[in-house]
Amino acid sequence: MSFAARHIGPSAAEQRRMLETVGYGSLDELMDAAIPEVIRWHEELDLPPAASEEEALAELRALASRNTVAVSMIGLGYHGTHTPAVIRRNVLENPAWYTAYTPYQPEISQGRLEALLNFQTMVADLTGLKTANASMLDEATAAAEAMTLARRASKSTSRVYVVDADALPQTIAVIRTRAEPLGIDVRVVDLDREPLPDEFFGLHLQYPGASGVVRDHAALVDGAHAVGALVTVAADLLALTLLRPPGEIGADIAAGTTQRFGVPMGYGGPHAGYLVVRAGLERMLPGRLVGVSRDADGAPAYRLALQTREQHIRREKATSNICTAQVLLAVMASMYAVYHGPDGLRAIASRVAGRAATLAAGLRAGGVTLASDDFFDTVTALVPDRAASVVEAAASRGVNLRLVSPDAVGIACDETTTLSHLSAVWAAFGVDPAEPVAATVPLARTSEYLTHPVFHSHHSETAMLRYLRRLADLDYALDRGMIPLGSCTMKLNATTEMEPVTWPEFADLHPFAPAAQAAGYTEMISRLEGWLAEITGYDAVSVQPNAGSQGELAGLLAIRAYHLSRGDTGRDVCLIPSSAHGTNAASAVMAGMRVVVVACDADGNVDLVDLERRLLEVGDSLAAVMVTYPSTHGVYETGIASLCAKVHDAGGQVYVDGANLNALVGYAKPGRFGADVSHLNLHKTFCIPHGGGGPGVGPVAVRSHLAPFLPSTDGPGLVSAAPYGSAGILPISWAYLRMMGPDGLTRATGAAVLAANYVAARLREHYPVLYAGNKGLVAHECILDLRPLTKQTGVTVDDVAKRLIDYGFHAPTMSFPVAGTLMVEPTESEDLAELDRFCDAMIAIRQEIESVASWGADNPLANAPHTASMVTADEWSHPYPRSLAAYPPGVDRTAKYWPPVRRIDGAFGDRNLVCACPPVDSYA
Amino acid sequence: MSFAARHIGPSAAEQRRMLETVGYGSLDELMDAAIPEVIRWHEELDLPPAASEEEALAELRALASRNTVAVSMIGLGYHGTHTPAVIRRNVLENPAWYTAYTPYQPEISQGRLEALLNFQTMVADLTGLKTANASMLDEATAAAEAMTLARRASKSTSRVYVVDADALPQTIAVIRTRAEPLGIDVRVVDLDREPLPDEFFGLHLQYPGASGVVRDHAALVDGAHAVGALVTVAADLLALTLLRPPGEIGADIAAGTTQRFGVPMGYGGPHAGYLVVRAGLERMLPGRLVGVSRDADGAPAYRLALQTREQHIRREKATSNICTAQVLLAVMASMYAVYHGPDGLRAIASRVAGRAATLAAGLRAGGVTLASDDFFDTVTALVPDRAASVVEAAASRGVNLRLVSPDAVGIACDETTTLSHLSAVWAAFGVDPAEPVAATVPLARTSEYLTHPVFHSHHSETAMLRYLRRLADLDYALDRGMIPLGSCTMKLNATTEMEPVTWPEFADLHPFAPAAQAAGYTEMISRLEGWLAEITGYDAVSVQPNAGSQGELAGLLAIRAYHLSRGDTGRDVCLIPSSAHGTNAASAVMAGMRVVVVACDADGNVDLVDLERRLLEVGDSLAAVMVTYPSTHGVYETGIASLCAKVHDAGGQVYVDGANLNALVGYAKPGRFGADVSHLNLHKTFCIPHGGGGPGVGPVAVRSHLAPFLPSTDGPGLVSAAPYGSAGILPISWAYLRMMGPDGLTRATGAAVLAANYVAARLREHYPVLYAGNKGLVAHECILDLRPLTKQTGVTVDDVAKRLIDYGFHAPTMSFPVAGTLMVEPTESEDLAELDRFCDAMIAIRQEIESVASWGADNPLANAPHTASMVTADEWSHPYPRSLAAYPPGVDRTAKYWPPVRRIDGAFGDRNLVCACPPVDSYA
Repeated sequence: MSFAARHIGPSAAEQRRMLETVGYGSLDELMDAAIPEVIRWHEELDLPPAASEEEALAELRALASRNTVAVSMIGLGYHGTHTPAVIRRNVLENPAWYTAYTPYQPEISQGRLEALLNFQTMVADLTGLKTANASMLDEATAAAEAMTLARRASKSTSRVYVVDADALPQTIAVIRTRAEPLGIDVRVVDLDREPLPDEFFGLHLQYPGASGVVRDHAALVDGAHAVGALVTVAADLLALTLLRPPGEIGADIAAGTTQRFGVPMGYGGPHAGYLVVRAGLERMLPGRLVGVSRDADGAPAYRLALQTREQHIRREKATSNICTAQVLLAVMASMYAVYHGPDGLRAIASRVAGRAATLAAGLRAGGVTLASDDFFDTVTALVPDRAASVVEAAASRGVNLRLVSPDAVGIACDETTTLSHLSAVWAAFGVDPAEPVAATVPLARTSEYLTHPVFHSHHSETAMLRYLRRLADLDYALDRGMIPLGSCTMKLNATTEMEPVTWPEFADLHPFAPAAQAAGYTEMISRLEGWLAEITGYDAVSVQPNAGSQGELAGLLAIRAYHLSRGDTGRDVCLIPSSAHGTNAASAVMAGMRVVVVACDADGNVDLVDLERRLLEVGDSLAAVMVTYPSTHGVYETGIASLCAKVHDAGGQVYVDGANLNALVGYAKPGRFGADVSHLNLHKTFCIPHGGGGPGVGPVAVRSHLAPFLPSTDGPGLVSAAPYGSAGILPISWAYLRMMGPDGLTRATGAAVLAANYVAARLREHYPVLYAGNKGLVAHECILDLRPLTKQTGVTVDDVAKRLIDYGFHAPTMSFPVAGTLMVEPTESEDLAELDRFCDAMIAIRQEIESVASWGADNPLANAPHTASMVTADEWSHPYPRSLAAYPPGVDRTAKYWPPVRRIDGAFGDRNLVCACPPVDSYA
Repeated sequence: MSFAARHIGPSAAEQRRMLETVGYGSLDELMDAAIPEVIRWHEELDLPPAASEEEALAELRALASRNTVAVSMIGLGYHGTHTPAVIRRNVLENPAWYTAYTPYQPEISQGRLEALLNFQTMVADLTGLKTANASMLDEATAAAEAMTLARRASKSTSRVYVVDADALPQTIAVIRTRAEPLGIDVRVVDLDREPLPDEFFGLHLQYPGASGVVRDHAALVDGAHAVGALVTVAADLLALTLLRPPGEIGADIAAGTTQRFGVPMGYGGPHAGYLVVRAGLERMLPGRLVGVSRDADGAPAYRLALQTREQHIRREKATSNICTAQVLLAVMASMYAVYHGPDGLRAIASRVAGRAATLAAGLRAGGVTLASDDFFDTVTALVPDRAASVVEAAASRGVNLRLVSPDAVGIACDETTTLSHLSAVWAAFGVDPAEPVAATVPLARTSEYLTHPVFHSHHSETAMLRYLRRLADLDYALDRGMIPLGSCTMKLNATTEMEPVTWPEFADLHPFAPAAQAAGYTEMISRLEGWLAEITGYDAVSVQPNAGSQGELAGLLAIRAYHLSRGDTGRDVCLIPSSAHGTNAASAVMAGMRVVVVACDADGNVDLVDLERRLLEVGDSLAAVMVTYPSTHGVYETGIASLCAKVHDAGGQVYVDGANLNALVGYAKPGRFGADVSHLNLHKTFCIPHGGGGPGVGPVAVRSHLAPFLPSTDGPGLVSAAPYGSAGILPISWAYLRMMGPDGLTRATGAAVLAANYVAARLREHYPVLYAGNKGLVAHECILDLRPLTKQTGVTVDDVAKRLIDYGFHAPTMSFPVAGTLMVEPTESEDLAELDRFCDAMIAIRQEIESVASWGADNPLANAPHTASMVTADEWSHPYPRSLAAYPPGVDRTAKYWPPVRRIDGAFGDRNLVCACPPVDSYA
C-alpha cells in the first residue's frame, strides 16, 4: 500500500460513501465545484514521484551520512548534551507526547501542563526570579521579547537599548532585526571598557559572556535601575547551578535557552528558550504561561493563565505575536531536571567546569594566554594570528572550536566533553596535556533550587518511566482519537517522518559547524525549500522562522524592506480583515505597521466594498493586506483574485497567511493567484507534530521581488537564532513530501475538503453551518453555529466542548473566528469510522441539549467533563443517570479516556496567579 | 549519576531506611547473614568496570559497525521484510508492550490477548487449519513439537518419523536433536524419488521446499493417513496467501515461522514460530493458547485456555516444556497482518512472486537451468561446479545467495527485493537482465482468509496507531507499576539496553550470512558468553537456546551425552525436588529421562534424608539432580553444597536451574559451589524484557567436562533454528552487564535481597511468611501464606490477586510453589515509594479481609477486579460503597488503571473452546 493510502484516512470505498452524502460523484467533481476557477492550478505539481517509506528513509540515511558529527566545542549557546534515553524514547519518540495539541483544553492536558509547570519552576528557581513562562522559541527571540518587555515596563522615555558586546552574536542580530521597525536604538557596548549611556530604557547582559567570561554585573544593574532602565540577563541555566543567579543581583528579566538540558542541538533547533521576570512584571510576560487554578470540585488543576494577554485576544494591542512555543522540548528539558535533580545538575555543572579548568590549565602550562581566568565552561585563548590554524588543526582532530577573531579561539566544554577531547584541543594548540584540576568558579551560588519534591522523586529509570507514562496518560493526543481543530490541521504525523529526527547525524550538529560538515543538511534544506516553492507558486523560500508567528514577522519585514528599498518610506499600513487570526495584527505591529481593519460581509467574506473604502482612506500609506486563504471561515472566497489586484493597484503587497494551505496543495498556488508572500506552517500542512504546543516551523515564501529581503542566515535580518531555524525537524516535512509525491499531496487536499464537507453535510441539520462558498460547499473546515442554541437553552460552546471530552474527543476550535461557534477541521487523515464517531457524538449532544430544559442547570453538559472520581462517588444527586455521565452513547466501555479533573475555573487562577509547582500539601 | 544508580530503585538513603526495618546496619551485614558461607564467593567479578550509558552505546555502535548489512537472498526461512514504522515504534520500541508479563492475569492483559487472538486467527486462516497456539520459539522447534504431537496422536505404533529431504536443514537438525532421546527414528526421504516407508507415525513436509519448489502434497498426505500417520506441513505463511493451504489437502498440523511478517531477521531471532492443528487435535497442542471466555458480567473476555495442558500443571506428564513463547514478536506479526489486511498481504506476495518469476526468466534467458519451474519466491539455479563462484560474485555485489551444493545456488526473493537486486544476481551469474514478467504460481489458492473485521479496519496509519495504543492501554505493564512476580524477576528493562535492538546493523542480518559480515555479532556474543561464564563460575556458555525451557533441555541433553560418552548408558533418572517448577520435569522427560521426585522438609528445603533414600533407590540409573537455587521457596538452602557432593558421589550430575540467579550475582557462583550445568534466563536476571510472554533467552552454562556437549551451531545437537538463537536481543544483556560493571551487579543483588526482606518484614505480621533461611531471612523473594486466612474467611489467593488490580498492582505469583500462597519478588529496581505502596495495599487488603464476615459473599475481594463500567452503573446493590470498589485506600484518583473486564471465568472458556477472533456481534 502506498504511503499516501496510509496517510489518507478514508479508503477509496469510504470516500465514495462520503461523496454520496455530500452529493458528488467523484472527488474531482467536488473539487471543481468547491474551488473557484479563478485560482485553480491545473498542472500537476513538479515534484519527484512518491517514494515508499523505505525508499524515503534510505534517501534520508544517505543525506544523513553526508553530515559529519564532530565534537562540538563552539559554544555560543549550543552545547553537546546527553539526552537520557528514557526521555528520548518516552517523550521525543512517543506519539502520546508529540502528537498532542496546545493545552487550550486544560482538562485533557494536565500531563503536559504539569511538565510545563515543572519547566517554569526550574527556570524560576535557577534564575532566582519569580515567574517564567512556558517557553520561548530560542534564546535570541527570547532576548528580543525581553527588550520589548523592558520598553513597555520602563518609566524611561528613552528609545536606547544597551546590549553587552559580549552577548551572543546571533542574539545581537535578532535584537537588531526586532528593534529596527520599532524605532529602538540598539547600542552595543563593551561594558568592560565603555560607560553606560546617560539614558536608556533597558540593558541586555550575557552571563557568562560569549567569550566565557563570568562578570559581576551587580554594579551595572544598579546603574541601569538608577536611570529607570530594566535589566535582562541572558543566562546559561547549567552555569546557574553554580553561579550567583541574576535574581540575586536585582535583574528584572532573564532570558536564554534550555537546549543543553538534554535537547539535541539539531543543527540549531528546536529547543525551548526561556523568559522569566521578577515579581511585578508577570502580567507583562509574552507567550504562554501555565498557572495553577482549581476545578469544579475545588481540586488543584493547571491551565494556561492570563490568556487575555495573548495576541489572539489583544490582536494589535498584544505585546508579542508568539503563539506556538517549544512545548515538546520544554518538556524534555524539564524532565532532564526532574531526572537529575538539583544534586545531579550540580554534579554535571561541576564536571563541566572541571573540564574547562583542566583545559585552561593545560593551555596556560603550554604558554597560551587566556582572555580571562573567570569562566564556567568556556575559555577564550589568545593566539595572535594563529587562531585560524588552531581551529583548523582541531577540526582535523574531529573537534570544532570557535574562531572568534584572527587572534582568538573560543573553546566550550559541556556534559559530553572527555579528557580525550581536551587532548585533541591541546594538540591543536601545540601544547602538552595537563592533569585534571578542580574547578573554582567565580561568584559561587549559595541559594538552594529545585527543592520541590518532583525534582527528588524520579531518579531511578523505573520511576522516571512511570512518571512519563502517568503524565502522558492524563492527556488526550492524536494517538487516542480525533482532534478536529479548525485551522490547526491535526493530521497524521507518520512514524517514518519522525524517525530520522533522532538519528545522531541530524540530531547532533552544531548550527555553526563548518558547512562542509553539514552537506546533508544543506542538500535536504535546499530540496525542501524548492519543493515548498513549487507547491506554493513562489520563487524563494526561507525555512529560518521557527514558528508561524516568526514567519509572519519575516514576511512583513520583507514587505517593509521592499517598500523602503524603493524609497517608499511612508507605506506603513497593514489592512487586515476582521476575521483574521490575532497573530496577524500583532505581527504587523512588530513589523512597524499600523493595522487597519477591513470588514467582512454577511457571508463571512472580505467585504470588497469596505476594502476599497479603506484603500482610499489609507492611500499611499498602504503597505500590505494580510489575508488568510481559504479564509478563517473555512471558505474559498471567490473574490481573492480581485482583492489581490486592487491591493496591487494601490501599491500594496499581498500577504496570504498559509495557515490553511492544507486546502490548497495541488489545487491552487498563492504565489500564482496574486499573493506576494506567505508563511507556511510546517507543523500544520506539512506534518511536523504539534508537540503539545510546539515546535512549529514557519518558513516564509515570496515572489522574486521580495527574495532579496528574506531573512539572512547571519547578521541583519536574522529572525531566529539559528541560520536554518529548527533544522532538526525539517526531515519530517521532507519525508512527507517525498513519500506523498505530487499525486498523493493532491489527493490529500481533496480528501481533507471532502471530510469537511461530509461533516458539514451530516451535522447541518443539527447545527447550522455558518459560512459556505461555491454551491454551499466549505473548504477544509466548517463552522458550527451554536449561538441560537445558546440563546434558547443556555448551553454554551464551552459546555459542548467539555461534553465532547466525555464522548472521547478533543473539542474543535472554540469561538474562533466567530464567538459562540465551533470550527471543525477533520483533515484527510481521519477515516470514515472516526468521522462518523465524531458526527454521532455531536448529534447525541444535540439531543442532550434538547433535554436540558428538563434537567435544569444541573445537566451533563454543564457538569462536563465528568471524572471517574465524580461518577463513582457514593452519592449521586444529579437529575441525569451516572451511566449517561460516564458512558454517553457510542463510548467504548473498555477503553474510555477519563479526564483527571473536572471543569477548570480559569478566572480563579488568573486572580490568584501561581505559576510554579504548588506545595504537595495543596493536594490534600 | 551512574547507570547502576538508575537501575537500582532505592537510593542509598532509602536503603538505609529499609535496612533499619529489616534490622541490619548495612547491606554487607545483611548479605553476610543471608547467604550461607559455604557458597559465598568473596572475590570481585572479573568484568570490565561499569561504562556510562553513552559509553556503552558507543561501544555497541562500534560493534554494530563491524556487521555488514548485505541484501539477503539466502532464504531458508529467513527473509527481508519491511517492518511498518508504526509497528516498530509503537510495539517493539514501546515499553507498554515490551515490559509486560505473560498474561496469566488475563483481566489486565486483554490488549495483548486480543493481539494474540489475532495471531492465532491469522495462522489458522492462512493455513486452512482450525486451531493455532499463541506462538512457538521458531520454525524448527515448532516442527519438533509437531513431531511429538504426531507421536502422541497417531494410532500407529511405529517409531519412524519421515522428513522431507527438501525440508530446511536446520529444521531437520532440530528434529533429530529432539527425536534421539525419545527413541524416534528420523528418516529423511527424497519424496520425489523415494517411496514412503511401510510404517511411520508422522510425515513432515516443507511447503514450498527449501529449494523453492512448490509440490502438490495431496497424494502424500493421503498415503500417510492410510497408515495412520499424521502429516505436518511446514509452510510459509506469505506463500499461503497465494497457494492452496495445507488444511485443504488434509494436513493435520502446520508449523512454521512468522518472521517475514514484519519482524527483522536479527541474525536469527527472535521471531514467532507457529503451530496449528486440525479440529480434534487442539487439546494436544503444546504451548500457550488464547481462548475466548466471559467475565463475571458475561462479557466476552480473553485468557489463556486449557492451561491444565501445560507443563507447570502436568509436570513430567506434560506434552512439551515450552513456557515463554515469542509474544512480542507474535504481536508484531499479527499487527503486520492487521495493517496490510488480506488484500495487502496478497499484493505483497504477488510482488514477491513476480520478482522471483522475473529472476527466473532472466536466468533462463541467459541459459541457466533451473531446478524447477514451480516456485513461489525461491529459485534454485543449477550451475555445475560454478556455484561457489556465483555466490562469491553476488557477495561482491552486496547480495548474499545460498550455496546449496557445488552445483546449485538458491536465490530467495522477498518483500524488499528490487529490480536492482535482481540485476546484481544476474550479473553474478553472468547473464543479461530480463524484463519484469508476471508471476504464475502453481496450486493457486481459491479460499478466502482474514475475513474478520479486525483485518479490515486499521489500514491507515492513524487507525493503526490508535489500535496499538488502545490495546496497550488495556494492559498493565512495568511502565505503570510494580509486577512483583516471584521467580520471574520483573525488573527494569532500561531504554539504553533496548535501543540497539532496532539498529539495522543488528536487526537486519541473516543467521546464515557469511561470518565475515557478522564480525560485530561474533565479538559481542563471545564477550557476553565470557561474562556470563565469569558470573556463574562455569567454563563455557552457549547462547543458542532461545528460551529458558530450551536451555534446560540443552543442559540435560549435555548431561545425557556426557554419560553416554563415558559408556554410562543406563543413567536415565533425573531427581527433582517436589518444589521445582514443572518445566524441569517436562524437560527431563524430553531429554529421555525418568523423573523421580525428592521430598522437601518442613522448612521447604530439599529433604536430604529423602535425597539419600532416592539415590540408593535409583543407584546407577542416576543421571542428574535438578534443583533451583535459591530454591523456588525463595530461600538460600544451606544444604546445597552437601547435596551436590552426594549426587556427585553417586555418579550424577548437578543441574542448577538459573531462574533465581538474581539472588546470586556477585555473591555466589553455581559453577563454583558444586553445580555442573545451569541455564540462565537472560529475560529475568539479565534485563531482556518479558515482552508480554516472550522473547526469552536461555543460555546454557557448563563446567568444562560438559563443554563438548553444548549445542552445536549447526548439525547434530542444534536446539534452536538459528546458530545463536535470539541473537538480535543479546545487545540488551550485553549493555546491562557493560553498564553495571562488577560493583553495580553485586549491589543490585544486595538491593534485591534487601527489598524482599523489607517486604517480608513489613508484611509478616499481616500474612505469615512461609519459609526462611539463615536467621529468618529470605533470599530475593518471599512466600506469603494465605491458607489460614482462606480457611477462616473463604477469601482466596485469587481474590487477593484480583483485588490488587483495584489497588493498581499486578498480582504476585499465585499458588506456586505452594498452593494457596503468593510469592513476591520485588527486585532491585523498585524504589522505596513503590515498595511501600505495595505493602500498604497488601495491609489494606488484609484489613478488608477482616470485614468480609460483615459483608458476606458479596464483598470487594470476591468481586474484584472492579471495572469502571461496574462502579458507574446506575444501580449499586453491594454492601460496600462504590468508592471503596473504585478507589481503595492509597489509589491515585487522577491516574487509576481500570481493568477492561471483570473476573474471567476460565472454565467456561475451556468447556467452550474458541481460539480465533469472535464475530463482532458477540460483543453486542
